[in-house]
Amino acid sequence: MQPYFVLVRPQMGENIGAAARAMANFGLNRMRIVDPRDGWPNPKAVAMASGAGRLLDGAQIAAGTADAIADCTAVYATTARARGLTKRVLTPEAAMAEATARIAGGERVAVLFGPERAGLENDDIARAEAIISVPVDPDFPSLNLAQCVLLTAYEWRRQTAESQPERMEFARTEPASAVEIEKLGDHYEKVMDEAGFFFPATKADGMKLVMRNMWARLPLTRADVQLLHGVLRQLVRWKDRG
Amino acid sequence: MQPYFVLVRPQMGENIGAAARAMANFGLNRMRIVDPRDGWPNPKAVAMASGAGRLLDGAQIAAGTADAIADCTAVYATTARARGLTKRVLTPEAAMAEATARIAGGERVAVLFGPERAGLENDDIARAEAIISVPVDPDFPSLNLAQCVLLTAYEWRRQTAESQPERMEFARTEPASAVEIEKLGDHYEKVMDEAGFFFPATKADGMKLVMRNMWARLPLTRADVQLLHGVLRQLVRWKDRG
Repeated sequence: MQPYFVLVRPQMGENIGAAARAMANFGLNRMRIVDPRDGWPNPKAVAMASGAGRLLDGAQIAAGTADAIADCTAVYATTARARGLTKRVLTPEAAMAEATARIAGGERVAVLFGPERAGLENDDIARAEAIISVPVDPDFPSLNLAQCVLLTAYEWRRQTAESQPERMEFARTEPASAVEIEKLGDHYEKVMDEAGFFFPATKADGMKLVMRNMWARLPLTRADVQLLHGVLRQLVRWKDRG
Repeated sequence: MQPYFVLVRPQMGENIGAAARAMANFGLNRMRIVDPRDGWPNPKAVAMASGAGRLLDGAQIAAGTADAIADCTAVYATTARARGLTKRVLTPEAAMAEATARIAGGERVAVLFGPERAGLENDDIARAEAIISVPVDPDFPSLNLAQCVLLTAYEWRRQTAESQPERMEFARTEPASAVEIEKLGDHYEKVMDEAGFFFPATKADGMKLVMRNMWARLPLTRADVQLLHGVLRQLVRWKDRG
């Protein structure tokens, strides 16, 4: 098994093709693409990918970031900074070592790459449990999309080519998938909205983002998610009984 | 001191500029260029280098590979294969670790990068004491010049930067203390008890333990704890309002 490399809202077809080539150099072939600006399929992507065209043929298209990672239990976001969200920050090396161990333990892993100019938005980053930050010179950070993909893929190859790392152990339960975390976030957001929690209105979006980020960042198990749903359902029932 | 990155007979100015940017990302600024096809200076190189233009201004031009490495005592050649020459073959990681040690010992190090299509010739490779081979997938080796420079520069940076363990980026907050976690657990236990969550009574102790364990296991920040208190308080207020 391999990680999914998820290109979030990529703009130029050429860059999608270049990212495919970068992946193929290191034996990766699972690409997902969120809402590509110029639609899909994209002839410019195919032309640039040249020998890596088959990788593009197999790329999965998703309407949003949440859909693209729904079946994954470990999600990493490549970005220069956490932009005010609380989050673990890993080097590409440490992240790919962790990803290798988690895949060996049966998990599905996704790595998010942002659009060419702006990079990932807070809404995307909030859905990741950790950030991958390439240790570039802070005075000259100029990696493009394909280069960021290349370095991450290179580290994947380095980690997997070496001896098998330790497995992750989970007690009596499994990690929650991204779709389970997403639904937990939806549940809390909906009920707390009804309860008048997001007040004043000018701060509502920020508060929702902070809460969404908290759920994504915490290493919740399926049992945790069930418990947290149960807590909320019970409180609503309690209220309804008056 | 840094290694010299020596571009041997590069063809397109754009690729020289892209190589300069790749180096600058990782703090390298010593470029030498052997016999550039389109002469020097090259406006296309400058345009592509953008912020790394100063690196190009300082580039040293040589007529041949031997001249470009004349003052160096350790020379590495990046190439996919040794082409029948007997030579040590190193990964970028091993090569940059060795280069770091040799520079620390007072040596001057050069790394040769070949022209875009053909790569280094045997005459160039024969002047190197070892080969750097990027561990690409043998079925899809398609690194371009700037990508090869990028990966080598990245490994240089990895070897020389102080070890970068995982760090945590926090938004205006710190990890919660044990007493804060304890109080959060008390708050949830008390309210959920009143709400009739711990039912049936025979299972109440077990459920409380599971919930207490969850709060303790999760890496909660102070901001998370405040948010989770706030969620519960708001739900109680909502209930009380009927």
